[in-house]
Amino acid sequence: MTAFDELMTYERDTQALSRVAGRLSWDQETVMPRGSAAQRAEESGAMEAVLHARRTDPRVGDWLAAAEAPDAAGAAQLRLIRRAYERAVKVPADLATALARLTSRSQGQWAEARAADDFAGFAPVLEEVVRLKREEAEALAGSGDRYDALIDDFEPGMTAIELAAMFDAMRPRLVALRESALAGPDRAPLSGRFDEAVQLRLSREMAERFGYDFTRGRIDKAVHPFSSGSGDDVRITTRTAADDPFNCLYSTIHEVGHACYEQGIDATYHLTPVGQGVSMGVHESQSRIYENQLARSRPFCHFLYGRMREAFGEIGVTDEDEFYRVVNRLHRGFIRTEADEVQYNLHIMLRFDLERALFAGDLQVADLEAAWNDRFAADFGYAVDRASHGVLQDVHWSVGLFGYFPTYSLGNVYAGCLHAALRAALPTLDKDLAAGDPGAATAWLRENVQQHGGLYEPREVITRACGSEPTAEPLMIYLEEKFGALT
Amino acid sequence: MTAFDELMTYERDTQALSRVAGRLSWDQETVMPRGSAAQRAEESGAMEAVLHARRTDPRVGDWLAAAEAPDAAGAAQLRLIRRAYERAVKVPADLATALARLTSRSQGQWAEARAADDFAGFAPVLEEVVRLKREEAEALAGSGDRYDALIDDFEPGMTAIELAAMFDAMRPRLVALRESALAGPDRAPLSGRFDEAVQLRLSREMAERFGYDFTRGRIDKAVHPFSSGSGDDVRITTRTAADDPFNCLYSTIHEVGHACYEQGIDATYHLTPVGQGVSMGVHESQSRIYENQLARSRPFCHFLYGRMREAFGEIGVTDEDEFYRVVNRLHRGFIRTEADEVQYNLHIMLRFDLERALFAGDLQVADLEAAWNDRFAADFGYAVDRASHGVLQDVHWSVGLFGYFPTYSLGNVYAGCLHAALRAALPTLDKDLAAGDPGAATAWLRENVQQHGGLYEPREVITRACGSEPTAEPLMIYLEEKFGALT
Repeated sequence: MTAFDELMTYERDTQALSRVAGRLSWDQETVMPRGSAAQRAEESGAMEAVLHARRTDPRVGDWLAAAEAPDAAGAAQLRLIRRAYERAVKVPADLATALARLTSRSQGQWAEARAADDFAGFAPVLEEVVRLKREEAEALAGSGDRYDALIDDFEPGMTAIELAAMFDAMRPRLVALRESALAGPDRAPLSGRFDEAVQLRLSREMAERFGYDFTRGRIDKAVHPFSSGSGDDVRITTRTAADDPFNCLYSTIHEVGHACYEQGIDATYHLTPVGQGVSMGVHESQSRIYENQLARSRPFCHFLYGRMREAFGEIGVTDEDEFYRVVNRLHRGFIRTEADEVQYNLHIMLRFDLERALFAGDLQVADLEAAWNDRFAADFGYAVDRASHGVLQDVHWSVGLFGYFPTYSLGNVYAGCLHAALRAALPTLDKDLAAGDPGAATAWLRENVQQHGGLYEPREVITRACGSEPTAEPLMIYLEEKFGALT
Repeated sequence: MTAFDELMTYERDTQALSRVAGRLSWDQETVMPRGSAAQRAEESGAMEAVLHARRTDPRVGDWLAAAEAPDAAGAAQLRLIRRAYERAVKVPADLATALARLTSRSQGQWAEARAADDFAGFAPVLEEVVRLKREEAEALAGSGDRYDALIDDFEPGMTAIELAAMFDAMRPRLVALRESALAGPDRAPLSGRFDEAVQLRLSREMAERFGYDFTRGRIDKAVHPFSSGSGDDVRITTRTAADDPFNCLYSTIHEVGHACYEQGIDATYHLTPVGQGVSMGVHESQSRIYENQLARSRPFCHFLYGRMREAFGEIGVTDEDEFYRVVNRLHRGFIRTEADEVQYNLHIMLRFDLERALFAGDLQVADLEAAWNDRFAADFGYAVDRASHGVLQDVHWSVGLFGYFPTYSLGNVYAGCLHAALRAALPTLDKDLAAGDPGAATAWLRENVQQHGGLYEPREVITRACGSEPTAEPLMIYLEEKFGALT
């Protein structure tokens, strides 16, 4: 065997073990008994130690030094393996294990604190998480920026400076759009009770329409909707609210976007480093374009209005124009995951700036709730009324995910670019969507984005698909047109 | 750290990883999408390779040579680790790999052959399995008996000679009991349709009554009922048949027995070698005593009859005496897993004798079906009508499980001993059971058997609980009294 072949054989096992660890997380969020948390923390820690040992095995370094890529895909494999190896050897094994153990525990404490609206009860463990993540960031960054080193985990090549420049240009336009859209009283959401079984059935139907392959996946309920896995086992979760069927429907379509990305990757890449979504930003571009540009479009709302009335009977809106407005309503809320396409990005910018400050050392965990509330009041114009509506609303920080949030808005930016290219490529898009058939659109995304997995760098994937470098302009034009017309 | 502490730290991670591998099997049997099988095979193989490498790591040998046990529990840990290590290093890596590959293929071929009632189609791959298992047995046995070496995997310290002496003494009494119990026409089972949701609700209630801790476990549906896991995450599965609620109820109570054993082990042993059931025989003693001596008893049937009528309405039996007879009905069947307390052991003895002959070289795979059918006709008095009702009915041999079957009857023997001791210790047992409360009985089992995990050798656990060495006599007396009165 050549060094390349030996390396790829080794990587295949590492990838398989990494899928096992991912499935363990899925299990924890969906089916694990609540009394198993302490044992699970040890199990996850042991898996993390195995993976860390494999990722930092000196043989990987030797093989990398000797390996020659047989083709372009092989070169991409080597590039991804080299990046992962160089990052992994920088983090001490003890630190990696401690982080895995801690975050398995801290997540439970976050859930309890959120239920009790008690940030003070969560702050000590979050401080510990931040302390370890700072250590990790320092180990990774060397002389570079600590926060950039964390962003790199989710969006290779992206920097906080670049994101800040993009976000700072978007923010005044978003604030203005938000203010004009919210000039009147809040538009009412749907009212009434919507049978849970019907919600779940309809969301499964939408998953199928958007191309989710149930023979290689499944949908379960969880507190937080997510997608998990790659290749031939990609599972998603959803949730239901009795008074809001859109919660279940649109979070399902969102996760289907993520899952279709993973399911759509060329099967020859399965269980290799190239066989996964290339970055969180590109991932989010898929979930967002499915959820927003496609499923919240005027034509798809025509279709969905009919299906929902068939499924639920009258749903309390006068006509499909009104339905479209309810689907795209802005309201004065607190929760990121419930936010519309306009305000969502303001939520992200808030978190991005707080994270940056935390890792620059300009903000301490003890002051985080106050900083959150101040910034929220400044951007949204009203006060956070409880911690679960503010600093405790997201799971991310409790599990050490710092540098992740900005990729959500980057994903929106990428989705804006892809949507413009998609509309140009598919003149019948609106007609298809009005018939409830996003198949041509999802096929275009599979062909131009999803199948490649990690073959190209994130920005290059988008550039190839769109024919030009990504910028925020297409997203902003889309938002201003859509929500300008909706006011 | 002392060598003992280093070894135990290492073992703790191995145990945690082994739990992860077990959870992966649970996932495969309960929730895995059907299109994920090929990827899952790679994931399981990668986990198995990690575990094999850990179990044969030369450091374990070094630590074992240097370790001194700090106490009796520590001595038990060392004993179990030493046994596992010595077994693991005796099997050549090539052979272990070949067996893993072969049995993952042969199981599928068995399933196809069973569906087609075609033993000849299965015989070639089974021959290969037996050939490799003989090689493995030879590697393990050294100058000892090959079949004993296989039994040792499931029941440490037990030998075929000892089992044969026990079984040979039981067999004529079981045959006689079977003949007298089956003198008349077959008793009819329940008829009618039993709502699946009610079956599952009632089986959950029974699980709780028998002490299953749902905060550290869960029940799901699967093709085959099983219990999976140790310590704080012990899951069971069940199945339903619309026309036979006893299938779901009693297989649940059986698995609850297994699960309560694992859940009942002293928490200080969790994630250590002592922190698991000590042998298959002792495990089966718990599942069997829950299912049979407790849940199929006359007093518990009084309670269950009432609960089933509350849950299902009239169930088509005239009174609780008739109900008790239906619960304990013998019939002229072919299938081990559907057999009553009497005939079950005859099924096991048949398999045990055939396995013994196979590994002594007195029987070849090509002659296995004829040998099965001859023996079945001799013990049961009628002919096997098709291979799926005979030699192809069990999965065990297809995956190389030889030496496992006898532990089922050994478990019944142990359950008989424990039941006699339990009745002596708990004068109110019948009254408790009639009230649907096996709590005192399960507490006695937890105290006297379950909590110890692997602290004592299998036979010693039973001897300590009962105050005397185990023999088949209490089981035989119990069966003859119970089924003598039922004819």
